[in-house]
Amino acid sequence: MAEEQGVTLESLRKKMADFARERDWDQFHSPRNLLLALVGEVGELSEIFQWRGEVPKGLPGWKEEEKEHLGEELSDVLLYLVRLSDMCGVDLGKAALRKLELNAVKYPANHCKDSHSGASQGGL
Amino acid sequence: MAEEQGVTLESLRKKMADFARERDWDQFHSPRNLLLALVGEVGELSEIFQWRGEVPKGLPGWKEEEKEHLGEELSDVLLYLVRLSDMCGVDLGKAALRKLELNAVKYPANHCKDSHSGASQGGL
Amino acid sequence: MAEEQGVTLESLRKKMADFARERDWDQFHSPRNLLLALVGEVGELSEIFQWRGEVPKGLPGWKEEEKEHLGEELSDVLLYLVRLSDMCGVDLGKAALRKLELNAVKYPANHCKDSHSGASQGGL
Amino acid sequence: MAEEQGVTLESLRKKMADFARERDWDQFHSPRNLLLALVGEVGELSEIFQWRGEVPKGLPGWKEEEKEHLGEELSDVLLYLVRLSDMCGVDLGKAALRKLELNAVKYPANHCKDSHSGASQGGL
Repeated sequence: MAEEQGVTLESLRKKMADFARERDWDQFHSPRNLLLALVGEVGELSEIFQWRGEVPKGLPGWKEEEKEHLGEELSDVLLYLVRLSDMCGVDLGKAALRKLELNAVKYPANHCKDSHSGASQGGL
Repeated sequence: MAEEQGVTLESLRKKMADFARERDWDQFHSPRNLLLALVGEVGELSEIFQWRGEVPKGLPGWKEEEKEHLGEELSDVLLYLVRLSDMCGVDLGKAALRKLELNAVKYPANHCKDSHSGASQGGL
Repeated sequence: MAEEQGVTLESLRKKMADFARERDWDQFHSPRNLLLALVGEVGELSEIFQWRGEVPKGLPGWKEEEKEHLGEELSDVLLYLVRLSDMCGVDLGKAALRKLELNAVKYPANHCKDSHSGASQGGL
Repeated sequence: MAEEQGVTLESLRKKMADFARERDWDQFHSPRNLLLALVGEVGELSEIFQWRGEVPKGLPGWKEEEKEHLGEELSDVLLYLVRLSDMCGVDLGKAALRKLELNAVKYPANHCKDSHSGASQGGL
C-alpha cells in the first residue's frame, strides 16, 4: 500500500542498512569507501552514454535491455548515495527538500525565464 | 502528512519537473547535459572529503555548517540523478527496488558473511 | 632546449614533488586524498561542458578566456594524476606506453575499421 | 634516445591520434564523448581503491598484478585526457606548465608552510 505512493528514501536507507548488516558489510561502509564506490558507479553510468553523441529525451531507439541496464546503473548510484548519506548521519530526503527551497530562492522563476547566462543555464 | 512517511523519489521527480518548467530549463535538460551536471556535483561532494584522510561514520568533530554543506552536495547529486532518470524515462524508485532484489540474489546473505574476496567486499 | 621536445611526464612529476615539499603538503598527499582531489577536478572539467549540448572538435565559437579556463581544468586533472601515480610508485609514462601497446593488440587496426560494435566504438 | 628523457605529452598525443585514425575512430572522438569516457576510466580507477580504507604511499603489500592493473587505469585516464585536450585544441603540456606557475603565485611556498586552512590543504 505504502509503495503505491512511491518509493521513499527512508525505505531504501533501511533496506541498504539491513542488506549490509546481514552480510557483515558494515565494516567496509566507511564514508570515503562508499564515496569511491559511488564514483565507480557514476563511471559505469557514463560508459553507457560515452560513444553515443547527443541523446534525445526518452531515449528513442534504445533497446529494452539497454534501458534496463541504464536503470541498474542509475540505481547503483542512488543506492550508494543513500548509504553514504546514512553513514554520514545526513537525512537525505530532508536535505533534498531543503536544497530545493534554497534553489527556489537562488533562481526565482520569473528572473530565470529565457535567461541564458552561464549561472542559470539549468543549474543547481 | 504524506511526508511523515518520508520523502518519495516521485515527489522529488515532480518538484524538479515543475522547477525546470517554471524556468524554461527543459531545453537544457538533455540526458548528457544532466549527466555531466551530475558528475560536476559528485566532484563537489568529493572536494568535501578530499584532504581529510579516513573519516569515521557519523562524522564526529565536523561542524554543523560542514554537515549542512555536505547535505547540500549529497542533495545536488540526488536531484540531478532524479532529473536524469526522468529525462531518460526511467522510474528510479522501481528500478532501485528491482536492483536491490538482483543484489540479494547476487550476494546471498549466508555466503557473504566474513568473505573478503574482491567481489563481495561491500559492493553492488 | 629540452622543452622544445615537449613537456615530459617526468618533469611534471618532479615539479609537483618539489611544489608539495616546499609547502609541507606531503602529509596531505596520500593516494586516496589525491584520488578524491582528482575526482573534484574532473567535476570542474565537466561543469565547463555541462549545459552546452554537443560540442564540435576545436571548440569553434569559444572565447579565449573559456579556452584558457578549460586548459586550467585539464591541467588540474593531469597534475593530480601525475602526483597520484607518483605517490603510488607508478611510472606513469612507462605505464601509458605499455597500455598503448596492449590497446594495439586488443584493437587491431584492420578489424576495427568501420566496426560499430559496442566494444570498439572508440574505446580503450 | 628521446624516451630516455622521459615520455612527452606530445608523443602520447601523436600516438593517440594515429591510433584513432588507423581505426576510423575520429568520428567517435568528440569532446563530450571523450569526457564521458574519461569519467568512465576515473570510475574504474576509483574501484581499485574503493574498499581498502586508507592506503599508504607506495602501496606496501599490494601484489604486482594489482599494481599493474592500477598502472593501466591511471594510463587510461591519462590517454583520454591527452586525446580530449587534442580534440579541444588545447596544448596540454603548455597548459600544465602555465597552471603550475599560477599555482606557485596562488600558494607562495613560505605562506603555506604549516598552514592547515581549507584552501591550502594540499590543493590546486
